Amino acid sequence: MRIEIICTGDEVLTGKIVNTNFSYMTQKLEDVGLSVYWGTTVGDDRDALLEAFRLASARADAVIVNGGLGPTVDDLSQEIAAQAAGVELVLHEDWLVKMESFFTRRGRTMPPNNRKQAMLPTTAEMLDNPIGTACGFALDIGKARFFFTPGVPRELRRMLEEQVIPRLLARSGAPTTIHLKRFHTYGLGESHVDQLLTGIEALDPSGGVKLGFRAHYPQIETKLTVRGTDMDDVQRKLAPIVGEVKQRLGNFIIAEDDQTLEGVVLAELLRAEAGLALVETFTAGQIAARLAHLPNAERVFREGHVVRDLTRLAAAFDVPSVAAGEEPSEDATLAVAEAARAQSGATHALAVLIALDTGPDRMDLGGTICIGLVGPGQRAFRRSRILGGREWVRLGAVELGLDCLRRFLSDLPVVERIDFERT
Amino acid sequence: MRIEIICTGDEVLTGKIVNTNFSYMTQKLEDVGLSVYWGTTVGDDRDALLEAFRLASARADAVIVNGGLGPTVDDLSQEIAAQAAGVELVLHEDWLVKMESFFTRRGRTMPPNNRKQAMLPTTAEMLDNPIGTACGFALDIGKARFFFTPGVPRELRRMLEEQVIPRLLARSGAPTTIHLKRFHTYGLGESHVDQLLTGIEALDPSGGVKLGFRAHYPQIETKLTVRGTDMDDVQRKLAPIVGEVKQRLGNFIIAEDDQTLEGVVLAELLRAEAGLALVETFTAGQIAARLAHLPNAERVFREGHVVRDLTRLAAAFDVPSVAAGEEPSEDATLAVAEAARAQSGATHALAVLIALDTGPDRMDLGGTICIGLVGPGQRAFRRSRILGGREWVRLGAVELGLDCLRRFLSDLPVVERIDFERT
Repeated sequence: MRIEIICTGDEVLTGKIVNTNFSYMTQKLEDVGLSVYWGTTVGDDRDALLEAFRLASARADAVIVNGGLGPTVDDLSQEIAAQAAGVELVLHEDWLVKMESFFTRRGRTMPPNNRKQAMLPTTAEMLDNPIGTACGFALDIGKARFFFTPGVPRELRRMLEEQVIPRLLARSGAPTTIHLKRFHTYGLGESHVDQLLTGIEALDPSGGVKLGFRAHYPQIETKLTVRGTDMDDVQRKLAPIVGEVKQRLGNFIIAEDDQTLEGVVLAELLRAEAGLALVETFTAGQIAARLAHLPNAERVFREGHVVRDLTRLAAAFDVPSVAAGEEPSEDATLAVAEAARAQSGATHALAVLIALDTGPDRMDLGGTICIGLVGPGQRAFRRSRILGGREWVRLGAVELGLDCLRRFLSDLPVVERIDFERT
Repeated sequence: MRIEIICTGDEVLTGKIVNTNFSYMTQKLEDVGLSVYWGTTVGDDRDALLEAFRLASARADAVIVNGGLGPTVDDLSQEIAAQAAGVELVLHEDWLVKMESFFTRRGRTMPPNNRKQAMLPTTAEMLDNPIGTACGFALDIGKARFFFTPGVPRELRRMLEEQVIPRLLARSGAPTTIHLKRFHTYGLGESHVDQLLTGIEALDPSGGVKLGFRAHYPQIETKLTVRGTDMDDVQRKLAPIVGEVKQRLGNFIIAEDDQTLEGVVLAELLRAEAGLALVETFTAGQIAARLAHLPNAERVFREGHVVRDLTRLAAAFDVPSVAAGEEPSEDATLAVAEAARAQSGATHALAVLIALDTGPDRMDLGGTICIGLVGPGQRAFRRSRILGGREWVRLGAVELGLDCLRRFLSDLPVVERIDFERT
């Protein structure tokens, strides 16, 4: 099935906003085994819209149009859809009533120009939007089925998932039960993960499992898309593969599905009824910023410290001084962690001390990252060297610090070589 | 002049990466007064590429193609460009030599498949890429001039600015001296800034000044694009308008051009040879993370503290306790700032204490933000209330805290009502 996407709107066309809706849609479709063949972006312009609809209707089996369903005069999707399909617009009383109650519930009266949002082509099938006033719709133009969706991201997401994808899957004739299983890893590069998982798809001889990756440095997301006749069939296919992935990627798996690294760390701290103290240097508060704002973090996060100049650690924590330009020793790093723990009354402490190279910010500028972890009757130290410029070192150190804390709390080895370090 | 953009590559088409190159290009073109009429996204697919080139060549005067210039077999831009133009590919010896020296300088030998990157259509004009191996080129296909650019963002940016835009401006026949002046504001909504600047373009009767905006909450960027016969002409047109913009937007201007709010704060601290201590609560280290990692911040940043539970402030700073669920008073907030300053030996301190509403994270969840500032012989307090859910409150408080610090250091009023608060 050939699928196209048409994104509309002057804000997207002129770059006033980055078009994240496009990548969101294509990714969601890929996750259920559907591929997009062609993408078009046009502004709020009658001629361009009509031409885009005409071209897509001649090439594709299905077309998703995003944007242009709003109440203002530059929102043209319904009008041009009707024109392209050669039909009239007609008022959908159902939607009008729904919109009026949408405003009433918020103690407001519906402005008259919103009425336009209930005008749909006569041949349109309405697609519900439970969280906004822009009603979606589907209709045929030429040989293609068009799906019109709102530009507001959260409204689009819901409509895509609940209304559009099920209809596309039904039209594609594919087994309709599709499940996406995700693993998040830290410390392995994409090609390394790919190589470790060689042959994993073949463990399901029916060919119902597809492997994919998504990299957002420094994490890699491994995606298993499983198709089956029903959820039992999907789970049967998935179980042995999930076991194998876990074995092959081992301790590098930091989270699954919607979990995050910081969420996993927080859950471990809450489970252990622990208290955490943090000391940061060049990461400059970013480790705390990943963790401490989360719901319930106030129950475990005791104190965070940011000291930018390592020579000041001595005064702040009453520990032996680290000389300017030197990298902190194992003893010095652990002493800082111990002092932060004692000062705050926490059970656990993480210290991430970084000796940053001097000189201009270039690709070969690096940093030495010294990580100290202390807990009841436990301590661990990790030294790592990351190259790639200031920002790369900072991002890497934030992730490495959080991952070492995860490993420490889960009794996994804190020292395990990662692909991003030079040691 | 009708301009189109064609983005190529499976990674962009499948949403593996968000296509920021598209918005970057259209925005840069808008900044110099050029508009993009149509955008196309296709994968690494011969038929789709050829069809995309064919359609664009019939519609547009100029087309920018992005991606597909790499050394691997799925990089098809040169080959399909030659096919669409009806010419052959020929080896560009100049580029081959340049690539070989590119590798030699890095102590490596050029892999044989890179040779492909020096194969260009016979009619192509080479576009230099001083920082990569993907050579750009321009050629005519049908009635349109095509510009082929690399997919790597920093290589694209440089080639767009140095090679493509000057050629587009020359073809458009517009005055070639174009200057972009930018102001960054915090605290005013986009429509408010728009209204304050009503009629500003008309101050230049020649019509050479165009006003535009870009919003990235909570900052607004105001852009003045000025066209003139030469730079003197541009400056003559710009001077009175810049003065008027500064007067109308006043203290809300936080930075100009490439400056950032945190960069301005850091420059003020360095200028005053000051030392800064920070105390954060629900912002959770994010204020420190904006500032303390910057080059030279180690000279002024003394200590940052993150305390997530306000009742713990008393123990951490030896100040009177804030009761659970209560908002910190002016005295309590200033006492925390004073204590942090004294503890760290800094000259200045900023405390941002937040009483977050309880309950589920919804649009009407808010936070009361209490900001205390102390410096030599100076102190200031600011109370603000922001609604919009946890993340919105956090982002708003980070910006408000930094902006109050900027105002405090620049002797501007710290208390001035902003559009985002409910007080």
